[in-house]
Amino acid sequence: MDVGSIGLDTTRTPFKTVVDVMGGSATFFGIVACFFAKTGLVGVIGDDYPDEYLKILEERLDLTGLVVERGKTFRFDSRFGYDLGVRTTLKTELNVFGEWSPEIPEEYRDAEYVYIGNIGPDQQLRVLDQLDEPRLTVADTIEFWIKNQRGQLTELISRVDGMVLNDEEVRQISQTPNIIKGAKTILELGPDIVIIKKGEHGAILFTRDMIFPTCGYPLEEVVDPTGAGDCFAGGFVGHLARKGDMSRRTLREAVVYGNVMGSFAVEGFSVERFLTLTMEEIEGRYQEYKRMVSF
Amino acid sequence: MDVGSIGLDTTRTPFKTVVDVMGGSATFFGIVACFFAKTGLVGVIGDDYPDEYLKILEERLDLTGLVVERGKTFRFDSRFGYDLGVRTTLKTELNVFGEWSPEIPEEYRDAEYVYIGNIGPDQQLRVLDQLDEPRLTVADTIEFWIKNQRGQLTELISRVDGMVLNDEEVRQISQTPNIIKGAKTILELGPDIVIIKKGEHGAILFTRDMIFPTCGYPLEEVVDPTGAGDCFAGGFVGHLARKGDMSRRTLREAVVYGNVMGSFAVEGFSVERFLTLTMEEIEGRYQEYKRMVSF
Repeated sequence: MDVGSIGLDTTRTPFKTVVDVMGGSATFFGIVACFFAKTGLVGVIGDDYPDEYLKILEERLDLTGLVVERGKTFRFDSRFGYDLGVRTTLKTELNVFGEWSPEIPEEYRDAEYVYIGNIGPDQQLRVLDQLDEPRLTVADTIEFWIKNQRGQLTELISRVDGMVLNDEEVRQISQTPNIIKGAKTILELGPDIVIIKKGEHGAILFTRDMIFPTCGYPLEEVVDPTGAGDCFAGGFVGHLARKGDMSRRTLREAVVYGNVMGSFAVEGFSVERFLTLTMEEIEGRYQEYKRMVSF
Repeated sequence: MDVGSIGLDTTRTPFKTVVDVMGGSATFFGIVACFFAKTGLVGVIGDDYPDEYLKILEERLDLTGLVVERGKTFRFDSRFGYDLGVRTTLKTELNVFGEWSPEIPEEYRDAEYVYIGNIGPDQQLRVLDQLDEPRLTVADTIEFWIKNQRGQLTELISRVDGMVLNDEEVRQISQTPNIIKGAKTILELGPDIVIIKKGEHGAILFTRDMIFPTCGYPLEEVVDPTGAGDCFAGGFVGHLARKGDMSRRTLREAVVYGNVMGSFAVEGFSVERFLTLTMEEIEGRYQEYKRMVSF
């Protein structure tokens, strides 16, 4: 199950600008996870959400948990610099997303694998409260919540099985400059899994008895980094759901699938790359990555 | 053989400041390379260079190529911020290093493995001119030379076998924002090997038919990043010299030894960590890294 934001993104790079394309954490996660396992989407859109986008979601995801409200869909406008490394937020319009509180449909309450993307920690906790006994819950957050809802965020971290965070979020939550030490500090708050997402530099998995550092898949063309983190999570949780176990080996494979799906994400604007992607291409890149990094 | 700067560093971190400690590219490279192979140092120091430092060099390196000039040794003063990621140069005093032009001793001219650390490209070319047929020449550079001696730097790149560069230097030399594409562009200038050093994020090796991305060895305590790049080069060239071949497999192993030696470098100020390091610790970390990243 996939809970989070669904939005319309305007993304400006020095090379091209796209307006009102598919965005939001739940969109990216869902469009990726569905390659690996049946995925139900829980989120809200306004009545201006384009039919063609709805069709893309419908063809891939179970939409029982999708709510359509009167009003405008969440919008996010941002710009990247020349090396596509730093994003500047130009405008955030919460619209119908601002007043939304996630309701988990009855038939999803026994979902086994649950990703709760970036929404407020209070709302993320509400999601956890509505679940029967999930096998794996993974959550994301952003600086805004670390600063403004630290108490609830700490409670969330103590209750989920896994957190997926970037370098800076690890530093902010743990209040330590070293991210390796920081991730271990976050593990002590309760979760069994902490993953540091480092974009082009890969990701590091931490469990209580393992550190698994990985490098990114090297790409010559990066078009748009938007959503790469949620796509990473989609590959990670998706592979775990597909395999049905959480052995050391499967966890490691899942991180590599996360990197692979993140690498596809940045090859196009929005979810573009996934609309034509095949399972053969995913497995092909996984194998290529494995050969590439072995020594 | 190891040609480059030998200096006295003042390094300021939020946690500690050290004054006039051993520094310079040739110092770091040599102190590392000597674990793997007999290494001769070519460089210049002033008559103020401390005896205790000279003793450390003497015990580990052949100093036939070390020149002592009347005057002061090269000095470098810099400060790191809280996360030890960004260095600010406070003062550079070239002193005797400013007028030095490397003379390769007669008995070094047939050196097989040669590292030419950060000195001007004109001087690096002078070193190449004095060599008989080396098996491997590897050079480093910095932004200053990319901006001020681009023509000579391009000639140098076309004549060496390998370049070891950081992300930003790859972007600046190749004039392309994507470092993967940038490294391939630099390969087209002539060398068989380009390595992008990414600090804590590891390194990527490029040859004409291979890309080998690696992640950094995860460290909980970083004391001082100074010299890590030259120590990486010391592990890389050192392992190649020790093995005596340049197969795909040996090149990959060498990059991992580079990461391993870079990780030891940052565990102490200056060359501190290497004064007590053993070959067993090096091989132990190599094996630990290999287990850690496998999947």
